[in-house]
Amino acid sequence: MQPTQSTKSNLSPLVPAYDSILALAPYQTGKPIEELTREYGVSDVVKLASNENPMGCSPHVTLAVTEQLGQLARYPDGNGHYLKQALADFNDVTVDQITLGNGSDDLLDILARSFAGASDAIVYSQYAFIVYPMLAKMQGATGIEVPAQRFGHDLKAMSQAVQDNPNTKIVFIANPNNPTGTQLEHNVLREFMDSVPSSVLVVLDEAYIEYSPESNNRALLDEFDNVVIVRTFSKAYGLAGLRVGYALSSVAVADLLNRIRQPFNVSRVGLAAAAAALRDQDFIEKTRQINDEQMRWLEKQFDALGLGFIKSHANFIMVEIEVEMEDTTATVIYEALLEQGVIVRPLAVYGLHNWLRITVGLAEDNLRLIDTLHSILTED
Amino acid sequence: MQPTQSTKSNLSPLVPAYDSILALAPYQTGKPIEELTREYGVSDVVKLASNENPMGCSPHVTLAVTEQLGQLARYPDGNGHYLKQALADFNDVTVDQITLGNGSDDLLDILARSFAGASDAIVYSQYAFIVYPMLAKMQGATGIEVPAQRFGHDLKAMSQAVQDNPNTKIVFIANPNNPTGTQLEHNVLREFMDSVPSSVLVVLDEAYIEYSPESNNRALLDEFDNVVIVRTFSKAYGLAGLRVGYALSSVAVADLLNRIRQPFNVSRVGLAAAAAALRDQDFIEKTRQINDEQMRWLEKQFDALGLGFIKSHANFIMVEIEVEMEDTTATVIYEALLEQGVIVRPLAVYGLHNWLRITVGLAEDNLRLIDTLHSILTED
Repeated sequence: MQPTQSTKSNLSPLVPAYDSILALAPYQTGKPIEELTREYGVSDVVKLASNENPMGCSPHVTLAVTEQLGQLARYPDGNGHYLKQALADFNDVTVDQITLGNGSDDLLDILARSFAGASDAIVYSQYAFIVYPMLAKMQGATGIEVPAQRFGHDLKAMSQAVQDNPNTKIVFIANPNNPTGTQLEHNVLREFMDSVPSSVLVVLDEAYIEYSPESNNRALLDEFDNVVIVRTFSKAYGLAGLRVGYALSSVAVADLLNRIRQPFNVSRVGLAAAAAALRDQDFIEKTRQINDEQMRWLEKQFDALGLGFIKSHANFIMVEIEVEMEDTTATVIYEALLEQGVIVRPLAVYGLHNWLRITVGLAEDNLRLIDTLHSILTED
Repeated sequence: MQPTQSTKSNLSPLVPAYDSILALAPYQTGKPIEELTREYGVSDVVKLASNENPMGCSPHVTLAVTEQLGQLARYPDGNGHYLKQALADFNDVTVDQITLGNGSDDLLDILARSFAGASDAIVYSQYAFIVYPMLAKMQGATGIEVPAQRFGHDLKAMSQAVQDNPNTKIVFIANPNNPTGTQLEHNVLREFMDSVPSSVLVVLDEAYIEYSPESNNRALLDEFDNVVIVRTFSKAYGLAGLRVGYALSSVAVADLLNRIRQPFNVSRVGLAAAAAALRDQDFIEKTRQINDEQMRWLEKQFDALGLGFIKSHANFIMVEIEVEMEDTTATVIYEALLEQGVIVRPLAVYGLHNWLRITVGLAEDNLRLIDTLHSILTED
C-alpha cells in the first residue's frame, strides 16, 4: 500500500487513547528566564514561578557534578546503588523499598501506568497538582476530582469518593499541597488510610516535605503496604535542573516500579548530585530558615497591599488578586509582572482565576516582586 | 477496611498488566565499573560492554556542563528551544518534527505507549535490540519476532509479518542493528516502506548512525509520514551519562509524542551538553576514524585467535566463542574476563549462547581484551 497523508492530518485510528491525549492541555511549565529574555527583551529577570530553591544547591553538589565531568560518556549505574543506600539510611527503609525517578514526575507517571488502566478510576483533590488529572487522561482512566475544603484536601469526601467508585486504583494526595500550600494533620490522614481498602494505592506526594518536616508521613509505610511516598530533589535540595526523585513503598510495589522504569532513567550526574545533596542537611536547614523568614515578610507585605493569601507550608504562597477593573483577572497582573521581568505563576488552569502562585525568593527577589506588584496595582 | 499484607505478596489484582510485567526479565545493563570493583575487588577495569565512546565526549561538552553549574536549581527549558533549533538545522527538519527524550529509551517507550495497546501487535527482528520485545510486553501487546537473516533484519519476512497481522501498529528496525552490527541497504528499506500500510508506524532506531553515516535514512521522512527516526547522544557523542535522545517524525506524530513525554524529561545539563556535542562534528569524525582503525585491528586479532565474528557497522562487534570444553558457553568466558577486569556483554538473553558483544575500545583497551582473551582460551 502506498503511503498517504493520513498520519499528518489525523492519528486517531492509530493511537488508542488519541482523543483523550489530544484533549490534554499540555502542562504549563513556569516560563524559563531565557524565554522571557528572548521574547520580551527583558534582562535582569526574577523567576518566582517554579518553586525552585532561590539559594541554588549545596556547594557539595557542584563538587560532585564536577567530579563526574570525566565520566559523562559512561552510562549511569542503572541500580543507583550509592544513592539508594544513602536514601535507605536517611529514611530508615531497606534499599528494595526505593525506586528512583527522573524527577518525581517520572514516578507519578510510572505509578499511574502500572496501577490504573482504562477501566479504573484515579481520585484526587480539586486544586491539587495538575499532573494528577493529566495522568488519568493519559491512561484513559476516569479522573475523579473531589471538591477542596478551604483550598486543601477534603479527605472525608475523598474517602467517600473511593467508596462510591469501587474501580478506584489510585488516590493522589499532595502534602503539603501544590499550588495551595495547605497541609494535612496526621490523624486525619491516618483515619483516611484506615477507611480505604488496601487494594487502593495511596500516593503521598511529599515534594515540599523539607519545608514542612512535621508533615512527614514516613511512619505510615510501616503500617500500610498500599502507601507510596514520592519525593523530589527538585525543590529544597535545589536540583530541578538535574531531574531526580524517589519513591518509598512496600518491597512488592518497588519491585514492580523498578521493572517498569527505564533502566537508565536517572543520569550519572543526577545520581551523584542527589547523594551529595542528601549529605548536606545543613543546607536544607538554612533553606528552611530563609524560606520561613521570607514567607513571614511576604505575608506582611500582602497584608499591607490588602491582598488575601492562603497560609502556606511550602516555599510558595497563593495570593488573591482582587482587581476592581472589569475583565481583569490575575492573568493580566501576571502579564504585567512579566513585562517588568518578574515571573510568577497564574492559576487559571486550576480554575483559580483570581489567584497567583508566587515562589518565595531571596530578600531582594521578594522586594522586587512587592515593589513591582505595588506599582502595577496602584497605577492610574 | 483494615490494611492487609496482600500488596506485599501479590499485586496481581491491582495491576492490570502485572503478570506480563513480572514475566519480563529485567533489562540487563552492562556491569558498571564501580560494581565490578565493589563485587570482585578488581581495580584497573576496562569496560567494553555498553558501546560507550572510549574517547569520552567533546571538550566543548565539559565546558557547557560547567557553565550550568550555577543553574542546577533551575528547571530545564521544557521546550528544549536551543537544542531543538540546533537539531532542526543539523537534520534539515522543522523544530515541530522533533521530540526530545531522556535517552532514546525514553522515546522508544513513549512510542510504544502511544501507538500500541493490548489488542495490537509490534513487529521486530530476532537478534534486534532487546528493549523492543520488552516494550511489547509492557504494553500488553503481542510481540512478533521475525527470524533474522544472517543475523540481520529480514525485511521481506517482516513485511509478510505485518501483512499476516493486520493489528500491527509498530515495526521496530535497528539500523545499524544492536547487538549484531548489521546494516540495511537503502533500496531494501525503501521496498519495505512501500510494502507496509501507512497506518503502521515504522520506527528506525539509528542509535549507531554516526558510525555508519551511509545508513542514514533521514530522506525517508520527506516521503513517509509513518516513519520515525530515533537517535541518541549516548553512543558516538559520548553522553550516555546524561541521557539525551531525539526523534524525528511527521509534525502530527511529534505533536503527540510531545504531549505524552514528561515536560522536563531532559535535564538542563543534558540539553546544554547535547547542543555543544552537536556543534563539534570534528569530534565525531575523529571518533569514527579511531573506531574504524580499531575495528580492523580487532578483526585481525579474532582471525588470529580463530574466532568467528559478524562484520559490524557500529562501535561493537559480535564474536563467536567456540569452546571445545563441555558445558562451556560464552557466559563462562564472560565471567573469566570479568575476573580479569574486562567487562564485555554476554548475549544469552538473545539466545546467542556462543557469542559475546564487545565494544571497540581505545588501542590499549583492545590490546588488554585480546591478551586476556588469549590467555583464557589457551590455558588449561
